[in-house]
Amino acid sequence: MTAIQYELIKTCKQSGARLGRLHTPHGTIETPIFMPVGTLATVKTMSPEELEEIGAQIILSNTYHLWLRPGHDIVQEAGGLHQFMNWDHPILTDSGGFQVFSLSDLREIEEEGVRFRNHLSGEKLFLSPERAVEIQTALGADIIMAFDECPPYPATYEYMKTSVERTSRWAERCLAAHKNVERQGLFGIVQGGEFKELRKQSAEELVSLDFPGYAIGGLSVGEPKPTMNRILEFTTPLLPENKPRYLMGVGSPDSLIDGAIRGIDMFDCVLPTRIARNGTCMTSTGRLTVRNAEYARDFRPLDEECDCHVCKTYTRAYIRHLIKTNETFGFRLTTYHNLHFLLKLMENVRRAIAQDCLLDFKEEFFERYGFYKPDAKNF
Amino acid sequence: MTAIQYELIKTCKQSGARLGRLHTPHGTIETPIFMPVGTLATVKTMSPEELEEIGAQIILSNTYHLWLRPGHDIVQEAGGLHQFMNWDHPILTDSGGFQVFSLSDLREIEEEGVRFRNHLSGEKLFLSPERAVEIQTALGADIIMAFDECPPYPATYEYMKTSVERTSRWAERCLAAHKNVERQGLFGIVQGGEFKELRKQSAEELVSLDFPGYAIGGLSVGEPKPTMNRILEFTTPLLPENKPRYLMGVGSPDSLIDGAIRGIDMFDCVLPTRIARNGTCMTSTGRLTVRNAEYARDFRPLDEECDCHVCKTYTRAYIRHLIKTNETFGFRLTTYHNLHFLLKLMENVRRAIAQDCLLDFKEEFFERYGFYKPDAKNF
Ligand SMILES: [Zn+2]
Ligand SMILES: [Zn+2]
Repeated sequence: MTAIQYELIKTCKQSGARLGRLHTPHGTIETPIFMPVGTLATVKTMSPEELEEIGAQIILSNTYHLWLRPGHDIVQEAGGLHQFMNWDHPILTDSGGFQVFSLSDLREIEEEGVRFRNHLSGEKLFLSPERAVEIQTALGADIIMAFDECPPYPATYEYMKTSVERTSRWAERCLAAHKNVERQGLFGIVQGGEFKELRKQSAEELVSLDFPGYAIGGLSVGEPKPTMNRILEFTTPLLPENKPRYLMGVGSPDSLIDGAIRGIDMFDCVLPTRIARNGTCMTSTGRLTVRNAEYARDFRPLDEECDCHVCKTYTRAYIRHLIKTNETFGFRLTTYHNLHFLLKLMENVRRAIAQDCLLDFKEEFFERYGFYKPDAKNF
Repeated sequence: MTAIQYELIKTCKQSGARLGRLHTPHGTIETPIFMPVGTLATVKTMSPEELEEIGAQIILSNTYHLWLRPGHDIVQEAGGLHQFMNWDHPILTDSGGFQVFSLSDLREIEEEGVRFRNHLSGEKLFLSPERAVEIQTALGADIIMAFDECPPYPATYEYMKTSVERTSRWAERCLAAHKNVERQGLFGIVQGGEFKELRKQSAEELVSLDFPGYAIGGLSVGEPKPTMNRILEFTTPLLPENKPRYLMGVGSPDSLIDGAIRGIDMFDCVLPTRIARNGTCMTSTGRLTVRNAEYARDFRPLDEECDCHVCKTYTRAYIRHLIKTNETFGFRLTTYHNLHFLLKLMENVRRAIAQDCLLDFKEEFFERYGFYKPDAKNF
């Protein structure tokens, strides 16, 4: 019995989006789903009870960060990440690859792995497929990720081809190193940038290794949205129907809907929590920067259509005051609302798939959110 | 009918401490009580629901800070402080005097009031007894404070005598300016530093004005603890039995107990919330600086005898990790525990008064907390 089982419930007749269930050792997730990011074993500002309250089904945590602080050995001694942070629902950890390639200086990529410097202390470290699996085994998430190379954007075809082939070899080494298969499911990551041929090569090589799930990496790295959509359109059909598909690092409302339409089941992104801490909220009528002066005497909720605890209880004026004065409670409130907004959006996406009307839902949502405005900003 | 009524239930036969009830427009408070401080209309990091959960009966908010941000007019438009911050229980606001005297540069004290510069913008402002009452009326707290002069510590007898007499004249002007007597109770503040004669003069002058409650100010400003205890011993007997007595700015466990023994009913202090944000916790066996390395692999709760949600759920190792990585949730957890600790302490103090054994309780508490150790630190 493998740790992770995907069950396809139905496909939206209008859009092709998938409604499914992902069975994990810590419970079943309804997909498509958005996963809040809890980098350091905490979704910034939030309690686990609040995450449950807003309907979070699974959260993501970062291997690289937990490896550095507090150390995966301490998390393991605590009984694993679930127990350490008091989250008894599914958890996914990334492989650390993305952070090694984006945060670290002086990285040297070798066939064996990557040498780099700890972005905090400058200490020299080494991460390899085997080490990434070892650390993730200690952390004990339900879903763990293969260690891949995250190439720069843009990259040449030649660079990308070398990288994709190394990522495939690393994926195979991750699989070989991964022993805890009944408690943790290891996902492979399809790379290949904007090159259709390389995405195909990457997908085929990974699918031949028979992972319990597949991620699509190297998107949302600076490319235009239509490019991302086009890449998804030729990549997801290459992945098996009976396995979950995870689009990494994507969390803007439009991309969540567009991704679901292209057959994606799982998403994660720091966007809703990061912008919340800057006083920006997602609402049914678009972005609202609650720190702006115009809200100083606005006693309406952040989103008049939102039924979250924050919108039922607090005014824009109060939240603006808290954000302006750097009060933690303000960041709690905007984070809570933004995560609730995206989780509710995914619930609506799942309902639209069930009713075969996800394209209609998209039109209506995009229209109201303002994505069709000439000056629409990218979330 | 005045807004604030104090009901003396009984006096501890062993210690003389008072068990009472304070009736306010937003409910009844069991005294002696500790009031968490919510400077900017939020008790830092905490939600109102969490404050209820740990048994907070009344909170304090700061007039000076709310006057500057968001402005008392905005709070008034929101329906007052209770509605603005979603706290439907009693609130006390200070007069702004303490901040004017401690935060501001270039203050000039005149008979009319104080000219000073806003500590944020440098803008010139003026605060007087009438203005302090006006702002506090707009904020709408249940208990509001007279505008007093907070003299420097130490101060000469001559300085202090001039100051005490001005504070009495200002108190009279506050009373005259205060119209909303059925919804808000105005407390006078006894000053006089370490001078028995001046404390007596101050108390007599204020008592003759017949306030619904009295605060003792100018303590916990740097004087040794025995000095504070001595001043309380000769000051509280000068105050009427049928009015509540509030010792301002005191929140260390020993001082709460020692204050109750000397007839104090109400306390406030930023100490438990401030040290929490530095990773220091109050526990039944003394202070615990959870950020220290020794707790990295300590999977016990902050306080093994504490029944708060944090201690039932999280380990020192996890909380240390959060504090070390500057994660908001860590500050939430230490703040929650510290406030719970002090509120529980006051509950135990009330029980001990009911059972006429507060001195025994003190001995046991001080012994375990470590106050009798030769190197005991000052809380
Ligand atoms: Zn909301
Ligand atoms: Zn506790």
